Amino acid sequence: MEFQDEWLQILRRCKDNVKLRIQPLFETLSEPQPDLGKGAGGDSMKAVDLAAEKAIIEVLQQSNVSFTLISEESGVIEFGAKPRQCYVTVDPIDGTTNLVRGLPFYASSIAVSSEPVLSSVYAAMVADLFHDTTYMAHVGKGAYRGDERIAPSSRLSLDDAVVGLDLNTYRVREIAPQVTGLIEATGHIRHFGANALELCYVAEGLTDAFVDVRGKLRATDLAAAWLILREAGGLITTPEGDALNVKLAPTEKVKFVAAGNPQIHRTILKLIQPRKRK
Amino acid sequence: MEFQDEWLQILRRCKDNVKLRIQPLFETLSEPQPDLGKGAGGDSMKAVDLAAEKAIIEVLQQSNVSFTLISEESGVIEFGAKPRQCYVTVDPIDGTTNLVRGLPFYASSIAVSSEPVLSSVYAAMVADLFHDTTYMAHVGKGAYRGDERIAPSSRLSLDDAVVGLDLNTYRVREIAPQVTGLIEATGHIRHFGANALELCYVAEGLTDAFVDVRGKLRATDLAAAWLILREAGGLITTPEGDALNVKLAPTEKVKFVAAGNPQIHRTILKLIQPRKRK
Repeated sequence: MEFQDEWLQILRRCKDNVKLRIQPLFETLSEPQPDLGKGAGGDSMKAVDLAAEKAIIEVLQQSNVSFTLISEESGVIEFGAKPRQCYVTVDPIDGTTNLVRGLPFYASSIAVSSEPVLSSVYAAMVADLFHDTTYMAHVGKGAYRGDERIAPSSRLSLDDAVVGLDLNTYRVREIAPQVTGLIEATGHIRHFGANALELCYVAEGLTDAFVDVRGKLRATDLAAAWLILREAGGLITTPEGDALNVKLAPTEKVKFVAAGNPQIHRTILKLIQPRKRK
Repeated sequence: MEFQDEWLQILRRCKDNVKLRIQPLFETLSEPQPDLGKGAGGDSMKAVDLAAEKAIIEVLQQSNVSFTLISEESGVIEFGAKPRQCYVTVDPIDGTTNLVRGLPFYASSIAVSSEPVLSSVYAAMVADLFHDTTYMAHVGKGAYRGDERIAPSSRLSLDDAVVGLDLNTYRVREIAPQVTGLIEATGHIRHFGANALELCYVAEGLTDAFVDVRGKLRATDLAAAWLILREAGGLITTPEGDALNVKLAPTEKVKFVAAGNPQIHRTILKLIQPRKRK
């Protein structure tokens, strides 16, 4: 218990240090960014992602914990004497494009787990860096925005629902048959461009669901928000309705349907797989 | 010239009063909203829309100007001795759903014109009420965010572009053939859910384009952002590439393609009308 609370404090310090370390970069962001090569997960690295990752590692090392880092940027790195003691899965900046362009939607995402698998995540933080809002969760203890416990929406109908939907893929024709019915049925479709943060919106009931069936999102990007949403009382499964059984590795990809309550979750599952309906 | 600057001052006071008058409603927003009937433009009215409209009218009346109000909420109303002297087209809250749900993207939009037609708009304001950012423009004098002159992006390629796309229609199957190629070609598709504000993002280069081919958006919602984007140096046309030749009336609907520069505008026009390509 003490150890667990300690983790949430460490995560909070990580957030503070990320804010501090990326601040100087904002001045140069209006200029074109240098391409620093490919990250371990395949994305173009950006100076700001690296600065944020460095800021997180810095705090973790000062905290004298042994851990294995799992990151989109640097891959898998062991720290300390007992690196298998815990796994720290990091998306230093969720929504880097937004940050670089000046769109006020980006976050830092950190998940702590006992094994390099999603189901063992036990402490998590997603920090909205622009609005300085921090979402945290610890397994069995609920989810919080700042000091306030959060809960998802109880809205049952898609008619007036707000649903996040990530369509960003050049293979949009492949997923179109899955998502067209959902768009037709949903009052308000959104995409803010920071998936971990948008899952926290579901967790606190600002939106009713978030759907990403592209198979393009990294498990590392999802890990922290996965726990926050579940601890808030929401649901997140595969598009088939199964538990998300994924490894935490920089190249692992996920598809998911996240929703505030079982009814709207079931409605969405039916809409996105019409051929499987009984 | 003095008269024109006076308008920008009046618009700024409208924004201040809207903020003041909607503030008390935030406390009750977590409770279900009463449905106050249908607005003149067909939408469900919300208490916050009405409060915002009232706040705007209040300032306009205090300013001793004669004008004809054109509003989604109340329709067309004449004020003062010479109501045909100017037309004030108002979307009191752009992004009401976001506001009601707690999503930090909503604005007030006011356009002043010499006739009830879009092409005669000469002064405009779109005020991001959450972040307290005010976009203003006066014909021939450029567009501003606060005191800073703004300009759109010079990005030419869709590969790494950020493009806003409004897909919110139950008739999404009808527009799918138009937008699928655009989604395929675009690096980052977004929809924040406040179209006037998203047009201002194009105006200041936070995004590269914004596309709405649904035929569902009201001309009243677009009027102010139309001038701001053009004065910033951006382009906004019909999906066929023609000038937006629309009346300012509560029931008038528009389709449009807005972009930061002629090249990316042309690229998008080609993508959304493949059958018309020569």
